[in-house]
Amino acid sequence: MAKRIKIFDSSLRDGAQAKGISFSVKDKIKIVEALDTLGISYVEAGNPGSNSKDMEFFNRMREKKLNNVRLTAFGSTRRKEISVEDDSNVKSLLQAYTPVVAIFGKSWDFHVETVIKTTLNENLNMIRDTISFFKMHNKEVIFDAEHFFDGYKANAEYAVQTLKAAVEGGADCLSLCDTNGGTFPDEIFDITKKIVSVFDVEVGIHCHNDCGMAAANSMMAVKAGATHIQGTFLGFGERCGNANLSTLIPNLQIKRNYKCIQPENLPKLKETAQYIAEVTNIKLEASLPYVGGNAFAHKGGMHIDGVTKAHHSFEHISPEKVGNSRKFLMSEVSGKNTIIKKIQRIEPSLTKDSKETKELVDKLKQLEHEGYQFEGAETSFEMIIRKHLRKFNPFFKLKYYRIIEEEPVIDKNCSATAMIKISVDGKEEMTATEGNGPVNALDKAIRKALEIFFPNLKEMYLTDYKVRVLDANSATAAKVRVLIESTDGKQCWTTVGVSGNIIEASMIALVDSIEYKLIKDMEID
Amino acid sequence: MAKRIKIFDSSLRDGAQAKGISFSVKDKIKIVEALDTLGISYVEAGNPGSNSKDMEFFNRMREKKLNNVRLTAFGSTRRKEISVEDDSNVKSLLQAYTPVVAIFGKSWDFHVETVIKTTLNENLNMIRDTISFFKMHNKEVIFDAEHFFDGYKANAEYAVQTLKAAVEGGADCLSLCDTNGGTFPDEIFDITKKIVSVFDVEVGIHCHNDCGMAAANSMMAVKAGATHIQGTFLGFGERCGNANLSTLIPNLQIKRNYKCIQPENLPKLKETAQYIAEVTNIKLEASLPYVGGNAFAHKGGMHIDGVTKAHHSFEHISPEKVGNSRKFLMSEVSGKNTIIKKIQRIEPSLTKDSKETKELVDKLKQLEHEGYQFEGAETSFEMIIRKHLRKFNPFFKLKYYRIIEEEPVIDKNCSATAMIKISVDGKEEMTATEGNGPVNALDKAIRKALEIFFPNLKEMYLTDYKVRVLDANSATAAKVRVLIESTDGKQCWTTVGVSGNIIEASMIALVDSIEYKLIKDMEID
Repeated sequence: MAKRIKIFDSSLRDGAQAKGISFSVKDKIKIVEALDTLGISYVEAGNPGSNSKDMEFFNRMREKKLNNVRLTAFGSTRRKEISVEDDSNVKSLLQAYTPVVAIFGKSWDFHVETVIKTTLNENLNMIRDTISFFKMHNKEVIFDAEHFFDGYKANAEYAVQTLKAAVEGGADCLSLCDTNGGTFPDEIFDITKKIVSVFDVEVGIHCHNDCGMAAANSMMAVKAGATHIQGTFLGFGERCGNANLSTLIPNLQIKRNYKCIQPENLPKLKETAQYIAEVTNIKLEASLPYVGGNAFAHKGGMHIDGVTKAHHSFEHISPEKVGNSRKFLMSEVSGKNTIIKKIQRIEPSLTKDSKETKELVDKLKQLEHEGYQFEGAETSFEMIIRKHLRKFNPFFKLKYYRIIEEEPVIDKNCSATAMIKISVDGKEEMTATEGNGPVNALDKAIRKALEIFFPNLKEMYLTDYKVRVLDANSATAAKVRVLIESTDGKQCWTTVGVSGNIIEASMIALVDSIEYKLIKDMEID
Repeated sequence: MAKRIKIFDSSLRDGAQAKGISFSVKDKIKIVEALDTLGISYVEAGNPGSNSKDMEFFNRMREKKLNNVRLTAFGSTRRKEISVEDDSNVKSLLQAYTPVVAIFGKSWDFHVETVIKTTLNENLNMIRDTISFFKMHNKEVIFDAEHFFDGYKANAEYAVQTLKAAVEGGADCLSLCDTNGGTFPDEIFDITKKIVSVFDVEVGIHCHNDCGMAAANSMMAVKAGATHIQGTFLGFGERCGNANLSTLIPNLQIKRNYKCIQPENLPKLKETAQYIAEVTNIKLEASLPYVGGNAFAHKGGMHIDGVTKAHHSFEHISPEKVGNSRKFLMSEVSGKNTIIKKIQRIEPSLTKDSKETKELVDKLKQLEHEGYQFEGAETSFEMIIRKHLRKFNPFFKLKYYRIIEEEPVIDKNCSATAMIKISVDGKEEMTATEGNGPVNALDKAIRKALEIFFPNLKEMYLTDYKVRVLDANSATAAKVRVLIESTDGKQCWTTVGVSGNIIEASMIALVDSIEYKLIKDMEID
């Protein structure tokens, strides 16, 4: 039977240390839920002592039921020369009401003496006291031995003493940290192996990528006996980032016969990565192992020829195993399999070889070239298929709109006004609204006009609005991609629009969303 | 004395297999010259048999003198069942007139029989014949043993026979390739060690990153005795890319005491990386080890405190060694230490304990709570400090603007019009412009009005424009954060604006950027 490896995701804590990454409370909840669905063992979601936003998150999480994830709050050992009970950070950690706490303490003598400026002995007391305090409060406690490898190389005896203090305090897991990311795989293997042989408690590994070694170091630690891996799902983190869990999970599970998540969840890996990237508002790097858009993209003629003859000739695993797919670049064969399924939902008589299928594949390629992206915005692609196959009668016509935005404004919350004229079956309707910004004004105006004809649009509202600048270098004239998520309380759908003008891009996505709602309700009637 | 490792850069050949990468002849020449200046041993610059552009490049290179780089042309062994002299690819390789050729051949029996469909013995002949042909023509010959590791695991005896055939042909170096990127560091180490012990010729390593192991695998191969490393300078390449040489060079040279390039060139590493990214037209990933913009960026308060006390507390090397620099990111977690340095640049008399410092820390926290983020947008924070300390006289007043956006439009590229009125020292100026979208129209209008008073604004232009929706769930009325990067050719700066209205947010960032440019030029005068 495959040996179990516990995956500990710190995207929301160590990941939030990365430049440009900042999560709202809602973002955090979404990511915890996605990781729970995938089957991750622990999510370290914040430091309740360091900011009030994290505390609000932990409060919100108390109502939520998680199936796989054990929620973890992160904090330091008590400060020097005070009692644990009097330490405000320790108190905040308790108030997070998580089943697990991760406590970091110093394992490098230089840090004890030079950075936190206390005695080596007091540092051991700080570790022991803090962990035993949380054990008395029935927490599962993970000890993050900060700078463990640098500490071990400088003073092995003292580094091991810090782990002993943690074990004496009752730690459930000793997580060995390569905090500065300067250690190499052979060193990680040798040192981890020694620690595993000395201690009876679980040993974990926490690596940073400053030498490009974070994933490899984690693999070597597992080989040496570590059974708990800390990292971030997409590898983002302070400086050069953390060990990338979306790389490590399939490495261990597919190629080294360990069990990290339920095997039936492995094909969700890519969509989880895509979702986390969207919520974090970063681009999912195309070259990422397993989950990147190019991870199975072949360009060279000989490679394409080889893969066509036998997939494993140029692929180390089958992309479907992780929910990814093969791409042949600059070639017509890509994508048909995926697209045909969507086409057949609307017109079951079409096949892979139909003329319409080819036309739609070409259309998709052209739109992707323009900056569209339909992953996570399938509704817009469904509308394109319907229009192309003439399975769509427009419900309304947009005749005209004008938006005026001015400064100074009369009402601070209504900086923009929009006028709009639409027609439904030859009947025109013109109206006007105010809004906070041009897109909001236009959104309100189009609904106000249409609700006269389609009262069911009142059930519908937007739940998400995202903007990505595609070609940042042309600055304010750059193309933008707008994603809109809508719901009517029964169902959620996402649409996309691309344009050099943010209002036009928003309008494309908004019109798709409204039309989809109307089709959906008509088909149910 | 440090042991010599030869660095073999294939950015222009294997790197060009990456999605979206394509080099002109001029690009290739620029990159070869940059790698030569840095002191790289080999540049594999193309496959003259596969396209005419590569042949043109090799012709152009014949006039150029290189100081360090030995230029290398890449090609296959002769095809099956013909003589070497009759193989057109082999002939093209000769016509490239490079001192070095890299010849790839199959080392995996499955590939021989299933992909190129010949006998195991004929494949050995193809390798031996081709190499001995190029040796007769006085070339240095590197044998790329394609799929060597997969081949070794499937049929070790045959894989070794292919290397023997290469040695019999006279190969100068045996480069062991993990073509599919599926091998782990421990396997690479064991197999490379065996090969090094069997053969007298130099052994090289060529790794792909499909398991996130390319850099680590290369390190372990060197530990096993390889002295020639193939990769691409920034790691780009087919699928998940190749071993990243800008990571491996400092890993080996700074941390493992090997000599890859002249020691005095190491501080040119970051600028070389930046230059190659520019020529390739890709963004230099900020999280790249050693050369990325964030490789030495610290955000957490404790990390900043530590680095301030002793740099090596949270840095595995000093950034100056590779020509990079330390950054402290502004954030609510970064604390007073970072902020005081910025304040003192404007008002040196203030200290950590001054009333104004406390007020500015509070102001920063409040703005971050509203959605501002100053890391990477320090210019906006500098403007806040100046305004708070009354060290700022406004250059102009924004009296009024009105933007009109309408559909249908007359000109597809000018969907919006903006009117603006500003005043400078009591003199009013009103103007109007068209633009692609409301932000672009306003951007153009404000500059047009101001350039009359401040002609130096003509030097300034925007290089990046980013939008982040902060509270996505309030959809089109959500708050947005806009980041604007500007340059005047001498310096780059970034400003930020937050508002429920994208136009207002853009305007805040834009006004900060313009004011900064005006202050900067005034202070120089």
